[in-house]
Amino acid sequence: MALEIRTKLRVRYAETDRMGYVYYGNYATYFEVGRVEAMKSIGMSYKKLEDSGIMMPVLEYKIKYFKPAFYDDELTIVTSIKELPMARITFFYETYNQEGEKLNAGETTLVFVNVKTGRPVSAPTEFMEKLKMNF
Amino acid sequence: MALEIRTKLRVRYAETDRMGYVYYGNYATYFEVGRVEAMKSIGMSYKKLEDSGIMMPVLEYKIKYFKPAFYDDELTIVTSIKELPMARITFFYETYNQEGEKLNAGETTLVFVNVKTGRPVSAPTEFMEKLKMNF
Amino acid sequence: MALEIRTKLRVRYAETDRMGYVYYGNYATYFEVGRVEAMKSIGMSYKKLEDSGIMMPVLEYKIKYFKPAFYDDELTIVTSIKELPMARITFFYETYNQEGEKLNAGETTLVFVNVKTGRPVSAPTEFMEKLKMNF
Amino acid sequence: MALEIRTKLRVRYAETDRMGYVYYGNYATYFEVGRVEAMKSIGMSYKKLEDSGIMMPVLEYKIKYFKPAFYDDELTIVTSIKELPMARITFFYETYNQEGEKLNAGETTLVFVNVKTGRPVSAPTEFMEKLKMNF
Repeated sequence: MALEIRTKLRVRYAETDRMGYVYYGNYATYFEVGRVEAMKSIGMSYKKLEDSGIMMPVLEYKIKYFKPAFYDDELTIVTSIKELPMARITFFYETYNQEGEKLNAGETTLVFVNVKTGRPVSAPTEFMEKLKMNF
Repeated sequence: MALEIRTKLRVRYAETDRMGYVYYGNYATYFEVGRVEAMKSIGMSYKKLEDSGIMMPVLEYKIKYFKPAFYDDELTIVTSIKELPMARITFFYETYNQEGEKLNAGETTLVFVNVKTGRPVSAPTEFMEKLKMNF
Repeated sequence: MALEIRTKLRVRYAETDRMGYVYYGNYATYFEVGRVEAMKSIGMSYKKLEDSGIMMPVLEYKIKYFKPAFYDDELTIVTSIKELPMARITFFYETYNQEGEKLNAGETTLVFVNVKTGRPVSAPTEFMEKLKMNF
Repeated sequence: MALEIRTKLRVRYAETDRMGYVYYGNYATYFEVGRVEAMKSIGMSYKKLEDSGIMMPVLEYKIKYFKPAFYDDELTIVTSIKELPMARITFFYETYNQEGEKLNAGETTLVFVNVKTGRPVSAPTEFMEKLKMNF
């Protein structure tokens, strides 16, 4: 009873730091890529959602780092949704490298917001239906 | 019994996203600026520490977002250390805009690591002494 | 007969790469900071300009790199406008480190565009007047 | 008599700015991805080259922007090498969107440098041979 999607990403030179690691702040970008792919996998385009007037700002973000990623690593982001959303939706993420080592684990909680009013709204019906069909 | 440092930052165009907000992942960079300034304020250069063979990778990072920041906002990052470190050190952060609104609050836990061995070490004596003098 | 503004920037950890240098792509961000400060110095807020319906996308960007910048370097970006703009405006940049070494030199050409129509327009009168007063 | 490689990239949310465009500075990162893929296509790993003691810092970078890219666009970077390198190597890039529109064109000139001595060296024999075989 969950949705789970794998996304592959190649570490770019720009994303490394002088320690030789992927900069700790860049996983937020990787997780956003995983999140968008998870939505696409059930037929929901985040771009279209936003263009239709619903945006999903992040309310909370947490990450625990176990091992670093390096330049040119091929990472797999495993994104999952474990519960059907109400007003909020939580995505969970795990990053693995090409050796299958788990590098970190994180989660983001987002809220559905009407772009015009700036007010929270409940999860769009279409999103809910597509999610239920894939749970 | 704590160290608290304020750092001012101007939001750059590159740091905004199509929502018009500072991208949620960029606060990790802002907090790192605050963290480095907090260390400098007690006479500890993170650069020198790293050049001397001790690096401080991030183990854990959390942030809660209350309001967005916008392009050209002048942000104040309030960085604080609330407890003397053992093997790990936790920095707390709050971001305020020019109207004094609290935009978000976060924390990072870092560990001291010997660059050559890759092993955790205890907080350098010099760091501890400078921290105690400023607590 | 030119406008010349100096902006100081501290290199952030996130901006370095595994070579230990500031990633070559990050100077575009630094130059944008210099450009905005140059405009502010004559009383023109780029944010207000954009909010009033005129945006300035970049048409062309060039940079030559002489020496790298490193983590925690205090850089000075010298931004200059050498000719009054017509439909286009060119900003020139030079980056110096704390030892006064010239690290690179670049230029960007931007165009004034009406946000609503997406069409190029001539430089706003207010911008031209403020620029002339400072030339 | 040239090498030409196509690389596909999906525009990430983090790469857009408040104008709704891909930030003008981010193409340097995209071009670096294209450059690395071009080298990989002839059997040269830039990572291995750098680990073996030869790095390739950028000496010069130029780009002309014709049209913007937007969030979630699928971009194709066409990277080409038109002349065999001597001490320097020039890569040319063109970015196209999913409608086949040319968005921009750029070039970077890089130099081969011995990591230890910091001195320029001629292009590694292996690189030259692989390049000749693919020209």
